This record gives sequence, structure tokens and C-alpha cells, in this order.
Amino acid sequence: MADPARKTNPAPELADAYARVRGDSRALAAPLSDADATVQSMPDASPAKWHLAHVTWFFETMVLKPNVPGYRAFDDSFNYLFNSYYESVGERQPRPRRGMITRPHLDRILDYRAHVDAAVAELLAGDPAPSVLDLVELGLHHEQQHQELLLTDILHLFAQSPLRPAYRDPTPLPVAQGPGTARFLDFDGGIIEIGHDGDGFAYDCEGPRHQALIQPFRIADRCVTNGEWIEFIRDGGYRDPLLWLSDGWAQILEHRWSAPFYWEECDGEFWSMTLRGMQPVDPNAPVTHVSYFEADAFASWAGKRLPTEAEWEHASKGLPLAGNFAEGGAGRLRPKPAEPGRPGLRQMFGDVWEWTRSPFTPYPGFKAAEGAVGEYNGKFMNGQYVLRGGSCATPTGHIRATYRNFFQPDKRWQFSGLRLAEDA
Amino acid sequence: MADPARKTNPAPELADAYARVRGDSRALAAPLSDADATVQSMPDASPAKWHLAHVTWFFETMVLKPNVPGYRAFDDSFNYLFNSYYESVGERQPRPRRGMITRPHLDRILDYRAHVDAAVAELLAGDPAPSVLDLVELGLHHEQQHQELLLTDILHLFAQSPLRPAYRDPTPLPVAQGPGTARFLDFDGGIIEIGHDGDGFAYDCEGPRHQALIQPFRIADRCVTNGEWIEFIRDGGYRDPLLWLSDGWAQILEHRWSAPFYWEECDGEFWSMTLRGMQPVDPNAPVTHVSYFEADAFASWAGKRLPTEAEWEHASKGLPLAGNFAEGGAGRLRPKPAEPGRPGLRQMFGDVWEWTRSPFTPYPGFKAAEGAVGEYNGKFMNGQYVLRGGSCATPTGHIRATYRNFFQPDKRWQFSGLRLAEDA
Amino acid sequence: MADPARKTNPAPELADAYARVRGDSRALAAPLSDADATVQSMPDASPAKWHLAHVTWFFETMVLKPNVPGYRAFDDSFNYLFNSYYESVGERQPRPRRGMITRPHLDRILDYRAHVDAAVAELLAGDPAPSVLDLVELGLHHEQQHQELLLTDILHLFAQSPLRPAYRDPTPLPVAQGPGTARFLDFDGGIIEIGHDGDGFAYDCEGPRHQALIQPFRIADRCVTNGEWIEFIRDGGYRDPLLWLSDGWAQILEHRWSAPFYWEECDGEFWSMTLRGMQPVDPNAPVTHVSYFEADAFASWAGKRLPTEAEWEHASKGLPLAGNFAEGGAGRLRPKPAEPGRPGLRQMFGDVWEWTRSPFTPYPGFKAAEGAVGEYNGKFMNGQYVLRGGSCATPTGHIRATYRNFFQPDKRWQFSGLRLAEDA
Amino acid sequence: MADPARKTNPAPELADAYARVRGDSRALAAPLSDADATVQSMPDASPAKWHLAHVTWFFETMVLKPNVPGYRAFDDSFNYLFNSYYESVGERQPRPRRGMITRPHLDRILDYRAHVDAAVAELLAGDPAPSVLDLVELGLHHEQQHQELLLTDILHLFAQSPLRPAYRDPTPLPVAQGPGTARFLDFDGGIIEIGHDGDGFAYDCEGPRHQALIQPFRIADRCVTNGEWIEFIRDGGYRDPLLWLSDGWAQILEHRWSAPFYWEECDGEFWSMTLRGMQPVDPNAPVTHVSYFEADAFASWAGKRLPTEAEWEHASKGLPLAGNFAEGGAGRLRPKPAEPGRPGLRQMFGDVWEWTRSPFTPYPGFKAAEGAVGEYNGKFMNGQYVLRGGSCATPTGHIRATYRNFFQPDKRWQFSGLRLAEDA
Repeated sequence: MADPARKTNPAPELADAYARVRGDSRALAAPLSDADATVQSMPDASPAKWHLAHVTWFFETMVLKPNVPGYRAFDDSFNYLFNSYYESVGERQPRPRRGMITRPHLDRILDYRAHVDAAVAELLAGDPAPSVLDLVELGLHHEQQHQELLLTDILHLFAQSPLRPAYRDPTPLPVAQGPGTARFLDFDGGIIEIGHDGDGFAYDCEGPRHQALIQPFRIADRCVTNGEWIEFIRDGGYRDPLLWLSDGWAQILEHRWSAPFYWEECDGEFWSMTLRGMQPVDPNAPVTHVSYFEADAFASWAGKRLPTEAEWEHASKGLPLAGNFAEGGAGRLRPKPAEPGRPGLRQMFGDVWEWTRSPFTPYPGFKAAEGAVGEYNGKFMNGQYVLRGGSCATPTGHIRATYRNFFQPDKRWQFSGLRLAEDA
Repeated sequence: MADPARKTNPAPELADAYARVRGDSRALAAPLSDADATVQSMPDASPAKWHLAHVTWFFETMVLKPNVPGYRAFDDSFNYLFNSYYESVGERQPRPRRGMITRPHLDRILDYRAHVDAAVAELLAGDPAPSVLDLVELGLHHEQQHQELLLTDILHLFAQSPLRPAYRDPTPLPVAQGPGTARFLDFDGGIIEIGHDGDGFAYDCEGPRHQALIQPFRIADRCVTNGEWIEFIRDGGYRDPLLWLSDGWAQILEHRWSAPFYWEECDGEFWSMTLRGMQPVDPNAPVTHVSYFEADAFASWAGKRLPTEAEWEHASKGLPLAGNFAEGGAGRLRPKPAEPGRPGLRQMFGDVWEWTRSPFTPYPGFKAAEGAVGEYNGKFMNGQYVLRGGSCATPTGHIRATYRNFFQPDKRWQFSGLRLAEDA
Repeated sequence: MADPARKTNPAPELADAYARVRGDSRALAAPLSDADATVQSMPDASPAKWHLAHVTWFFETMVLKPNVPGYRAFDDSFNYLFNSYYESVGERQPRPRRGMITRPHLDRILDYRAHVDAAVAELLAGDPAPSVLDLVELGLHHEQQHQELLLTDILHLFAQSPLRPAYRDPTPLPVAQGPGTARFLDFDGGIIEIGHDGDGFAYDCEGPRHQALIQPFRIADRCVTNGEWIEFIRDGGYRDPLLWLSDGWAQILEHRWSAPFYWEECDGEFWSMTLRGMQPVDPNAPVTHVSYFEADAFASWAGKRLPTEAEWEHASKGLPLAGNFAEGGAGRLRPKPAEPGRPGLRQMFGDVWEWTRSPFTPYPGFKAAEGAVGEYNGKFMNGQYVLRGGSCATPTGHIRATYRNFFQPDKRWQFSGLRLAEDA
Repeated sequence: MADPARKTNPAPELADAYARVRGDSRALAAPLSDADATVQSMPDASPAKWHLAHVTWFFETMVLKPNVPGYRAFDDSFNYLFNSYYESVGERQPRPRRGMITRPHLDRILDYRAHVDAAVAELLAGDPAPSVLDLVELGLHHEQQHQELLLTDILHLFAQSPLRPAYRDPTPLPVAQGPGTARFLDFDGGIIEIGHDGDGFAYDCEGPRHQALIQPFRIADRCVTNGEWIEFIRDGGYRDPLLWLSDGWAQILEHRWSAPFYWEECDGEFWSMTLRGMQPVDPNAPVTHVSYFEADAFASWAGKRLPTEAEWEHASKGLPLAGNFAEGGAGRLRPKPAEPGRPGLRQMFGDVWEWTRSPFTPYPGFKAAEGAVGEYNGKFMNGQYVLRGGSCATPTGHIRATYRNFFQPDKRWQFSGLRLAEDA
């Protein structure tokens, strides 16, 4: 995350970015009632109110308190309420009990945000040290992560209600043209370089940039679609243990998975709960809300495999960071069929996070940052797989080719999908 | 519940009662935000919004739909959302998931209430059949039960918050004079009559009135106090397995009980979460939020026992139904020390529900009512004990000498306390 | 349990009884391998080895140690291993971990038995105090209880094995003639006396003898049969929530009960795992291995109810204590069809324990015995129902008309059945 | 596992190996009673009887049935009882219920072994196809794996007994001289080759041999000792969340880990349950029974890291496969202090399995074997870490430099320890 070579004072730019990102969060919260923003639908999810307050707490705790003499905390109780997992910062509300906090009201959280925003704006208007700018920048990326989680967590909450409320306009999206059969593009093997090179912001786990050795491989030019997934279902994919990792098969037996999360079959047609309410499954759009276990089983069924994160990153080299993103909540908020006929790799960024077969491990030479922010990523390097490329719920501008998202292999509530690969 | 001898048309009186009880519910909800009214803090508790809607659904389903031709349901989805446990009425939201329903908003629930209130008022203004009057009366008693639950469930919810918010004015209550040592009053044995005699309203489980045989006994003239409970604690009551029922001791080992629910020890003083926020424990007031297991162990420690429900009902004969009740939320909402020096039995009604040693079983000749209302009580006649007398959260006018409340022996979130008895 | 009026020295008789009962336990263990006798198939069950050692520990701890100067314990570690639940006697192996004790070997347990038997025989051959005789008598009744548990626990263990081994000769039992339609016998109401009168041995919970008030009632002259139960199944009894107690219905949903425990449907025929291996269900024999919840639901379906324990005891007055018992393991070990045409109440003793609708509560004036033996029954007086009459696994001579067995309402692994009753 | 270049008929050698390995299993079972061999102490562990039968079932199912015309299975029920997890072979006893199988008796399992041994001997005495030889060889390696598991599972079982029985002679082992401070040996980075090259037996997951890129690194010349671990404990290692992976810290909170598995503190001294009963912890011996989480936290505390499996394999190149192994049960069965003063890497083989930081993932180009044996390793490639080098419970001759053992990071009942590494 460090940027030791910060040449000119970027504080004004950062102030703009700050205003934009913080405004996006407010916009995302706009459709929510106080109750919508309070309830926690499962231990993995957090209330919207918590997301909105926690990212603000991050600025207050990491930026304002150490750097603004005389800064008065908005509310001393918030340090307990809205710390996420920073052991070094103190005790906190246990994660599975975040939904018990009905007070403060959403309005008071918005006041908290305004209070902190004013103080940060004033700080940035002065002549803050580079280390402060780094922390503000980190805070904004942190907030963007929580913007995506806010959306996925609200989707999960609304899916628990028998009313299946829509977060956004429930008008069905127009059906687009099919993306055509997937083509597999060839890449040579050899020593490549991956990881962040220190130019611009990145999380600590994206570095250091380092050499990696890959074998020749081929990778699909688009994501696996709902239509292909329905073939997998119809072919008995969820009923054949030989396709599955042992732990994945255990999930199937325990939870009776038979389709992606949020899917319901109704008179032979698949429907899915979405941020736009119940919608028919679009066969041309990328499949999403599948676990790593499902992605891996699908690849086995298809006679392929998932790419490694090194292959994925190598293949994405030089591609523009364009795609179907959240656009501050104004986006589609659903994966979109790949544009037919376009050459090269499609859908590498946006639409769905792509499971790779790479466990989330430290890069060679990785050292966690010092202090509380060092708890950011390193301690989660166990039992998770890397996902790449961002999704339709990822804030525009948040993604990078080196970006490493990570989740446990049984998780399904994120916008997770897959792209196939194979040995050349 | 039936009143076959209804002599004069009580519809106008009932209309008044209806307005009063329904207004009480609205008043109880007034201090709550939409979020307060939505969250479910444990499977045993329900959201305030759910209570407010469910009692209304009862009137809509049991009274309006069958008796008002052309009645239009306020919202068809509410039948699924707000049915509690009536298997004969159809599918419903699973109880532990009631807190997932963030919509409809509390305001819409209040609109629902107004819609049903208008229809019931119109129905009562006509010439309704006696069976309709009976159902309305049942509905009001049902609503009063939920008023008490609304209070106990809000207390539980607020106790989960690290902020310990107060439902009502958190000013400490004035400390009253001590109630004096408990005296034990003597009662003869013999054949007595208990149970409801059919005059006025009662739940089905309160009847039929029948003969019971009791032995001579003695019963304390007041409830056990917090001060006496502290003695029990200091004497190691929670650490001596020989005082406890086997299932109670298992609870202690599992949940590490060492004091009544909601108590916290702070610098050697006991404090308790209450509807008025954190308050010091008043040694003169009746102990509350104790389980049956604790009440039974305390009685063993004291060399006494709990009364049977027949003994309790017999002892209460002729006493006025006066006491420390909820008064539509305007009451003390805390148990009050017994008035010192007053002869006869004190605190029989109000303050705290008194655990009896009687399992909740059918009276001889009991038959559940026909139809959906028959699911009201009979199916819960297993694994629960009878409590008598009402509490500081019981609506004024709701209690009777024959009233049988019932809870599982490990439950502690109700205003449950105890009074000692012994064989003469 | 005390017998203060013991007139003549019964030590020789008691010595005979001791030899007989202890020999029965050895005989029951004979078909078991060391492994059979070691494994614990569920927390409710205990290994046969444990039963054999625990009853011996009871004699060693309660009889020998306090009364035989210089008695040398067989093995000091056994006090920890084989204490059941006597908190006052010290720490012990946690109940659900009794199956972890692979050593000592079954042979060593038999040596332990011989060691204690010799010491008890010597004690009885002297001039033991009446209190010692009382304890020996209690120990024998205690051992007989464990003989029945040994059989039910072995059945449960063998039912877990895919091989379904038979404890005894698996030859199918001859099919007997049907018992005919049940007749209901009338009994008057009034004040009756129940409970043990102090003449001969009884457990503390059987007394004191006391007056009880009953209403006129009718009771079936035989137990409910498998054939009648199959009608209940075919009529959808396990699928209609309105027949069930709420807690019972929850069991059905959780455990998918659709027939008595150990039943399996095979090509439209019901079979059952028994101590004689897999056997076809005999429609004429009493149904067994049903929970209280099932018994209660069956009674509702039949338009009847279960008897109270007072009714049962009153009805049994004067009947001989004869029936289908275990006979030291040489018995049928299966319930037997009631003898057709015989007048009066049939099957009151033996065959199956009969669920009553009475929770297991203390009789008026009940006081637990002093000391460790006082932990015998009183602390279990919660959440259980009384069963009466003994079963085909009950040792011959163990039962009395006043005998109160008790189990939680969801338990099914005992030989529990039912007899119907109704208000007259 | 394939050996396409098998030049001469190795059947006689294989017959010798077969006799030796099979004899070792019998020897390992010798100290066990039928009950010892039957009980399952946790779902991760299996009964010794099951291990003895399952490895035999493997030969019967994979070798004899397909290759010996007219072979008569010893007992048809064994296919259900002793299949481990081969979905393609059919239904099987659920893993957590393996301990319910009290019959067949241990003697009958030994008969089963003899029956199969005779048939395999006859098969090998003929002119078996190379594919048969491959399967026999695989079966022997499979059996050796279960020999180690038999020992670790018996240790776990005996540790559950309050008697803490010893599997082998409980005489304390002589205390050896200390191994001296660990030295770190340097290795260059670059492209190396790892994985099995196809010469001799290996499991499918050990191949294909492939290039890997490593950075310069340093690795300790011996394993971490108990003495060093005690320093970690005394320094608060188990109480500082910043040292731990997030999932590891959750284990500490849940299971209250404060020392390696099987350790008990007694008057300030650490003791440990071992295959030789309770023994004092030897500060000079390698620590064992630690989880990956503990190993990783220890490395963080020490300012080092665990090696990758590529580093470990590279460092071990050329070392003899000698060390402290099980020797058919006649070995020490405890880790041994490293020999002081010996140059080069010590303890790479034997003593304790060494946790690496490498998740168990497929090597580039890995393809699972066809058929049932293909279920051997691939489906477990999730959520586990690779361990290298074998232990004091590993059969002599079973280990290879390319050998990849794997367990979940919270497992502690194996002989797992660690060796530190760091970036050069």
C-alpha cells in the first residue's frame, strides 16, 4: 500500500476521491430503511448500518485520532460497536451479534459520517504528511470493499424475506444476444512477473511483485454462462460425487445444493433472487453465486480446470480495466452476457468474480504492514481461494489486474462465477 | 373461553375495551424505532413489529374474514408473515426467522392496525352474533398477552446491545422501605374447587372448574426478594449440585448461571438491565428473571418448596385483582417491594409471575376448543410449568385468579419470580 | 425405601436374593463379547460393561465401604469410572464418554463382581444391621433396573450395526391368535389411596402413600397393538400436526419419525429390529418403542386419552404381578399378544411399559432420602412422564403396582407402549 | 504409482514385501484387546479393527475380485463395512459410525486377513500382470499408511481413558543430550525440479515431476524442540492474537488450547500422554502433536516462517531415508532429540511430520488415476497443508523425499511438528 515515490502533493485529488467514494456509500444506502440497514441475516453478512459506520470508524481511528490534535470522537461507544477484527485496537461487538444493535439510528450513523467527513476534509485541506495520504487512500479502498459487501449482504437479507423485496427497480432486464461458444486462447509458459509493482495503490497482499513459473495454458475468452450451468444441472452434475472435491460433496449432502445460490425452479424454469427482485435466469449471462466447490466440479464435468491466479493475471496483462461495475449503485447490478463477436478475452473485469484454483497464500517475500493495518490481509491466509477481476457489484475504479479477492470455498453469497482453463 | 349465558348485548362495552386495548399496544410501541421493532434477539422472542401485526392478523383471520362478507384483506402476504403457529391456518414464516422481515415498515403495520380496527369497529357497531363477540374478546386477551411479550422481548433485545438502551425513563426508582420478614399463612387441606367457572372470559385451559384434593399447607405472605436471593448466591447456592434438579444443574454447567438473568456484578454490587436501563438491584423488591430451576433450588436451600397451582389458587380466593401492573406502559415496569406491615397475602397479583411446582397439564375433563382457536393452549401441555398472578408487565385487567401462564423451566426472560410454601 | 418394622432377620433370604439377582446379570452378559460390552451407542445408553460394574460399585460404595471395617476396594480407579451421577460421592467419567473405557476388560469386571460378591456374602452371613439389609435390598432393585437397561442398550447398539446381530436366538416367534377388540372397563371416581404403604421394598418416589381424587373413568383391557398402530400410520397419523403436542411435532419434523423406533418398511411389510434380530412386526402384539409424543398422538387420533398414573394404579389394585417378564434373559424378550377371551384387565404387568399422562412429580409429602441414596429419584422430577407396569425386559419380581418408571417424552429405546383410557 | 518400465518380474520380491507389511500390521494389533480395537474415539479416528479390515478389503476389492477368477469373498457384508470413501465402489458405513461395529470379533478380522493373504500369495506365485503387481504395491503402501493411523488413533483412544493406559512399555525413556542451538543452512534460488520421477512407487499426487521456481532461503538443521515450545508458552504465545492466523485464533478461543495436544501441566512440569503412557515432556526432543495453526504462530513468534514443500524437498535432496521410524511397532514410538554435533540437516526423515506452508494442491499437469484408485488423493486437495518427512510412527521404508502427507490445519492427533525457515 505504501507509495514511497509520491512526487507531487495529491491531497486535492484525494479530497475529490474521498468526496466521491463517501458519496457513493450514501447513495447505496438511500433505498434502505432503518430496519433494512439494521438486521444481520447470517454471521457472514453485516448490517448496512454497520458497514456505513465501520468504514467511518476506520477513518476516525486510523486517520483522525493519530493525526488531528484535539480531534473529538463523535461517540466513544462506536469504537466498541464498529471495530471489525482489529485485535490491536481493542474489544469489539462479536461479529455474529452485529445485528443486535438497533440503536444508533441510521440517521445518527449518517451524522457520524458527516462529522468525520468534515474532519477529513479539513485535514486534507491542510498539508498532511504522505503517511496520512496513504491511510486516507487505504480507507477509500477499504470503503469500496464494504460497498460491495453492503450490496451482497442486502441481497442476502432480502432473499430471506418471503416477500423477496427488490433493492432496485424490479423491471426485468432486456434479454441480450448470446455470447457464442467459448473460445480458448493460448498462452506460452515460462517465467513471468506478477504482483503489484508499487506504482499506485494496492493492498499489501498484492506484493511484492515477483517471478512465477507457469506452463503453457489455454483460457476461455468468456465466463461460464447460466445456460451452460443448466446443462451441468440437467446432466446430473450435482448428483455425481466423482466430480466433486470431498469437502464439496459433504456440502451437497448437508445443504442439498442442486443449483446456484438464490436459484429457484418454478414450473421447469429457473428464477433467481437478485438486487432487482425475483428475475428469470438469463441463459446468456455469466453464472454467479456459485461456490468454489461448484466451480471446480463444473470444470471437472467440462473436462477443464480453473486457472491459477498467476495464469489469470498473466492473461489479463494489458487489458483495459473496463467492464460491468456497480457505478455507485446506478449500474446493472447483474452480470451481463458477453458481447458476441468481440475478439480477445471478454469479461475479465466486472460481471462476476472468477474463482481461481489458487489458495490465498503469501507471495514470496510478503511481510504484513506494521501496526493495526497490518491485520488487513495476512491473517486470513488460510482456507480461502483467490478470486480475480471484480463483479457487477464492485465499485467502478476499485479493481486492478493484481487484485486478490478471497473467500472460503463454500461461500456463495458473493457475485462469484468462473472461467475455464486447461493445460496447453 | 365460551360464555354461553351472555345475557345482554355487551357489544358497546366490548367496543370500548377494543379501543382501549388496541390503543395500549400503540402506546407500547411509541418508544420504538423501526429497527427496534424489527430485530429478533433470540428464537424465543419475537420482534415488536411481529407482535403488533400478529395480534391484528388474529382479528382479521378469526373475526373479520369469516364474519364480514366482502371484507378485503389488507395485504394477502400477511397471512404467511404473521401467523404464529396455527397449523390449521396454513404455512407461515418459521419462528426463528421472524427477524428477517425488515419490510413492511413499522408505519405500514400501524396502517394495518388502523384498517382492521375500522372494520372491527364497524362489525361491533352492528348486531354481531355472540360467537363473534366471544372471538373479539378472545382476541383482546390474546393481544394483552402479546403486550407483555412485547415488553419482555424488547428488554431482551436491548440487553443484547452494549449500549444497554432504556425503553423508558432511566432515572433510578426511589428506594422503598423493606417488606419485613416473610410470614407463612396456614391453609387447611381438603377438597377444594379450582378452575374457571364460566362466568366472564377465560382461556380454555383454565377449565373446567373441578374438585381438587389438597393437604394442609403454609404459604409465604410475599415474594422472595432480591436481598434474600443475594444471600442464596453468597451461600454458594449456584455451586451446590445437591440443591438442583438434574436438568437445572446441567443448565448451570452449560450456561454458567451465577445470578438471575440480566444481573451483572460490578465492584461487589449487583446491577440489572431493566426496561429503565441499567439499575442497581433493589434488595427489597421481589427477585425476577429467575428460571424454574433456580426457583426450585432456592426453595430447597431455604428448606421450603414451591406451592402447587391448586394451593396458590386456593390461597388467592377472595383477594382483589390489584397490584403492580403495566398500566399500558405507564406503570413502574419493575417489581415493587411489598408494602410493609400489611396483613394477609401480599403481591399475589402483579410484580412477578410466581412459579408453581405444577407442570402445565390438562384439567380433568379438559377439551380443546374446536377449530383454529383450539390450537391455543392444549398443544403446549408438555414440558412447562404453571406460573400464577401476573407481573409488572402484565396489562392491567388481564389477570384472573384462575389464570395459568406457562413456560419451560429454563426460561428466564419473563418477569418470573417465586413465593415459598411448605407442608403444614 | 426404609422398612422400620423389619420383624425377623431376613439376611438369609436376602443372601439368596443377592445370589439370584447377581447371577441374572452374569447370565445377561453371557452372549456379549468384550467389544459388545464396551461400546456406547448414544449418550442415553451405557455400555454393558459399565452397567455390570456400576451396580457392583453401588454395593462396594454404599454397603461395603461404610460397613465392613478393613474392606479393601478392588480397584481405586473404579470410583471414578463407575459412579453414575452421585454428586456427593465425587467426580466421575462424563456420561457421554462411558464408551471410551476399553479397559478394564470384561473379564476383569467379572472378577470385580466376584470380589464384591464374596464380601457381601460374608457381610450377610454375619449379623448385619437393618440399615445394611436395607441398602443391600436397594442395591438389588437397583441392579435389576440396570438389567433392563442393559437389554435396551444392547438392542440399541446392535441396531446401529448394518449386520443387525441378534442378542438371542433369531428364530421367528410363532404367531399367536389375535387379542380381540379392546374393551373399556369402568371405574368409579372418588378419593382413593395410591403410593407405597411401607410394607416391603419400594423406591422413595413411590411414597408416601396418600389420598388422591379421581373422576369416573374407563380404561382399555389390553395394550394398543401393532396392528392398530399400522392403521394409525396408514391413516396419516404421523403427518397431521393437529394430533400432536407442539414439542412432539417438532420431533417429527427434525427426526422424520414415521413409525415406531426400530421399524423398517420393506416391500410394504413392517419389520423391526429386536433382541432376536430383525423380525416381522406381529400385528397382534402390543406396540412398543413409541415415545410419549407418539402415544399421546395415537390417543388423540383414537378419540381417547392416556390414563393418569393414579387411574392406572387404582385399576391395577388386586391384580397378580404376573406377566411376560425377562426371566433372567430366558424370557421371550418381546411383547406377547394378549390372551384372547380372558376377562378383566390384561397385560397390566410385563410386555410393555405403559405411558401415563402424569408428569413425574413428587407425591404430597415426599422427602428424598438422606445421603447419597437420596440422589436416586428426586432430582429427576422434571420433564419426564411416568410409565407403569414393567415390560418384557423387566426382571421377574422387580415390578410393583406402585412402581413409577419415568422417561422424557421423546425417548423411544425403552420397551414403552400404551393403553387407552377415557372419561366415563 | 504406475511403473511402465518394470523390467523383470518382481513378483517374488513383492511377495516378500507383502508378507512383511502384513505381518507388521498383525504385530501392531497384538497389544490390543477386542474392545481396544473396536471403539472409535472421534470421527477423525478409526477403530484398529477397521484399519485392519479396510486394508484387507482393499486387496480383496482392487486386486483379488477383478483378477482371480472364481475368488470367493470372505464375507459379503464386509464390502459395506470396510469401504472407506470410494464412492465408485458403493455404499458404506458412515465414517463417524465405524465404532458401532462390535462384530465381527477381532479374531474374525484376523481370519479375514489370513484368507486374503493366502489368495494374494497364490496370485503372486503365478504370473500376474504388471497392473496387478502395481495394485499390490499400492495396497502395501496403503496398508503402511493405515499402520501409522492405527497408532495415532490408538493413542487418541487411550488418551480418552482416565486410566491413561500405555500401548507399549511405560518405562520412561532415558534422557538424551541436548541437540544444540538450531543452525540455518543456506540454499540458492532458481528453477529446481520436484515431484516423483516415475522410478519406483509413488502416489499419484507426488507427480508429475515438474519445474518449480524458488527464491534463496535458509532452513533450520533440526526440528523445533519441546524446550523451545515451552519458551513460546511462557512468553504468552497462546495468548497473543497478533501471532495467529484468524482461523487459528478462533480455535484457541473455542478449544482453549494452551499447549500441544496431550500435554498436561502438573506442579509446573509438563507431561504428555504417549504410546508409552504418561511421560514427562523431554525438552530436547522435537515438539509434536501441534496443529498447523500452532506451527505457524510459533514461526511468527520466532521471526521465521515455515518452509514451502518445494524448499523442503529441495533441501532434502540426496539425504538418506534414515531416521527414527516405527520399525513395525518395535521402535521408540516417540520423537528423539537430534544427535548433537552432526553437520548438515538432521531429523529430515522420521521423528515428526513437518508442517510446510504449502496448501495441498495438484502439481502442474496432475491427473488423478482412472477408476476407484483415482479417488485416492485428488479429491482431498482442499483445505489441507502438506507435511513432509514421516514420523516415529511411520513404517520404516514407507517414506520418500517426494512424499506428500496432508492434514487440515487444526488437526493435532498426528505426530506433527515443525522445522523453521526464512528468506535468505
